[in-house]
Amino acid sequence: MAGSVTEMENKQVVLTEYVTGFPKESHLAVRNGGKIQLKAPQGSVLVKNLYLSCDPYMRGRMSPPKAGGDPNFASFTPGSPIQGFGVGKVVDSGVAEFKSGDFVWGVTSWEEYSIISNTKTLFKITNTEDVPLSYYTGLLGMPGVTAYFGFHDVCAPKKGEYVFVSAASGAVGQLVGQFAKLAGCYVVGSAGSKQKVELLKSKFGFDEAFNYKEENDLDAALKRYFPEGIDIYFENVGGKMLDAVLSNIRVHGRIAVCGMISQYNLEHHEGVHNLAAMIYKRVRMQGFVSFDYFARYWKIAYVEDVAEGLENGPAALVGLFSGRNVGKQVVAVAHE
Amino acid sequence: MAGSVTEMENKQVVLTEYVTGFPKESHLAVRNGGKIQLKAPQGSVLVKNLYLSCDPYMRGRMSPPKAGGDPNFASFTPGSPIQGFGVGKVVDSGVAEFKSGDFVWGVTSWEEYSIISNTKTLFKITNTEDVPLSYYTGLLGMPGVTAYFGFHDVCAPKKGEYVFVSAASGAVGQLVGQFAKLAGCYVVGSAGSKQKVELLKSKFGFDEAFNYKEENDLDAALKRYFPEGIDIYFENVGGKMLDAVLSNIRVHGRIAVCGMISQYNLEHHEGVHNLAAMIYKRVRMQGFVSFDYFARYWKIAYVEDVAEGLENGPAALVGLFSGRNVGKQVVAVAHE
Repeated sequence: MAGSVTEMENKQVVLTEYVTGFPKESHLAVRNGGKIQLKAPQGSVLVKNLYLSCDPYMRGRMSPPKAGGDPNFASFTPGSPIQGFGVGKVVDSGVAEFKSGDFVWGVTSWEEYSIISNTKTLFKITNTEDVPLSYYTGLLGMPGVTAYFGFHDVCAPKKGEYVFVSAASGAVGQLVGQFAKLAGCYVVGSAGSKQKVELLKSKFGFDEAFNYKEENDLDAALKRYFPEGIDIYFENVGGKMLDAVLSNIRVHGRIAVCGMISQYNLEHHEGVHNLAAMIYKRVRMQGFVSFDYFARYWKIAYVEDVAEGLENGPAALVGLFSGRNVGKQVVAVAHE
Repeated sequence: MAGSVTEMENKQVVLTEYVTGFPKESHLAVRNGGKIQLKAPQGSVLVKNLYLSCDPYMRGRMSPPKAGGDPNFASFTPGSPIQGFGVGKVVDSGVAEFKSGDFVWGVTSWEEYSIISNTKTLFKITNTEDVPLSYYTGLLGMPGVTAYFGFHDVCAPKKGEYVFVSAASGAVGQLVGQFAKLAGCYVVGSAGSKQKVELLKSKFGFDEAFNYKEENDLDAALKRYFPEGIDIYFENVGGKMLDAVLSNIRVHGRIAVCGMISQYNLEHHEGVHNLAAMIYKRVRMQGFVSFDYFARYWKIAYVEDVAEGLENGPAALVGLFSGRNVGKQVVAVAHE
């Protein structure tokens, strides 16, 4: 006789409607998703979610669907839980690679329990002792992979080069700055508050940092910090900052396009006017996504901003777009 | 007793003033440059210019000087002859690599006789029999190098890929289209007249071609010619065309930024709005210049537009920016 299957209530965060412009908390709703049987179907894993990651790329998935997109970045479905990276504990497994009790990180849904059928983006956590589990939403998870490969592979840094990082105190930027220092580069970061600028200099070891909101002329600001020009720009924001960088880029400069958070909430993206500089400066500008690089781990100083409880998830995710977070924003759903 | 040195009158085309906006013929003047002694100083070569090349990049050199530029693209000096690529015959040589009677191509000045001191950008022509000398301003000169390395090195084409070339009937575009066909790609070109579009299809073997001036919606035009999207864009024009390409680029698409002729005469360059597509599509956009690739030669069908006489040089050069030329524009100063 088969044992009885436990059923649990399953709180969820769902998208209420597609977003155009700036996302509001009302675009997300916390609801009771009904009961879930704690049993994994064949080929899937049933996970208890512990930490959910708030990442800027999620904004794209809140927009109405577009034709021909990458399934990893497909639009969310209104009325269904949103998806993102998270850390969880396997409750039941229908695949050989995972067993009950394993800790995992990867793409999950914003709810207490998730059935994950796409296990290609799910990774087993082997080190659960030396490192907080939440770090697998950041340093040791997708943002870590993004920063490491984005900087080392896409930017191809050389010792002594001049590196600029925008959104430098965020999940990815804080790591890029440190990787750049480890590579022997001179690193300047921009961020949107005095507190973040201080953090860049005092904790993350950037050579210089500035608050872009206090600069009327970004071109002049960059000329002040980079009198010799910029070799590498790790692009997280887009728009006017990219134009200012193009005015200060050096010959054979490289621009890794990781994100453009200043643009995601605009119905019409700002125009970038200085692209012609790419020609005579032989600039390489390269977009990339972490999904192509899931591989390696690294240890480095790291700041996170933990919101407690799934019900605080909407505010945490929306707060990303006003820069409310300090460091990597993560939502703690449960502590085991 | 040394022989007497011949002196010749030396007609020149000089820049009258720096250009902002669209260049006019009055920005250039044909003048008598006085007498020149046909004797090369030590370390220099004295050349009789035969053909002068009209190239879009020359527009940048007509603008007021900017700090920190590449000397190859430094602003011209008002009152002095403008510079560009050309073909000439060595009259007297003060360097070992060239001797009197050699035909050469490289960077020279717009005048009948030039003293060339920077011989790093001067190349000896060995084949003067099978090929018209003027081809060394195009197919076998700088535009050929630009097209060949821009396409093969920067675009890294694979058989069966979808290639789009703008300004496709120009000096570089006509060659890129043919290299792309040789590489087994599907190639579509855009140009600015019915005659040029016909030439692309009938002479250069493009699979399709369209007149961008007849398209109200460039995005829709590209969707018509590339229902599967674009793998490679050879960028010669910039602005709205680049935006339309970014809306139709495929995952791992490549954009070789060779030129942006639609922007050179605008005081404020148009904004490009769709750069965020680079992220999820993992697009590489790469600026490059031929100076980095001077090396190899190739034979291929080729159309040129020869203006006879230095006095017709200003109209020929200015005509580039209204698309008056059909194929590679060149100025014949003398036929030997």
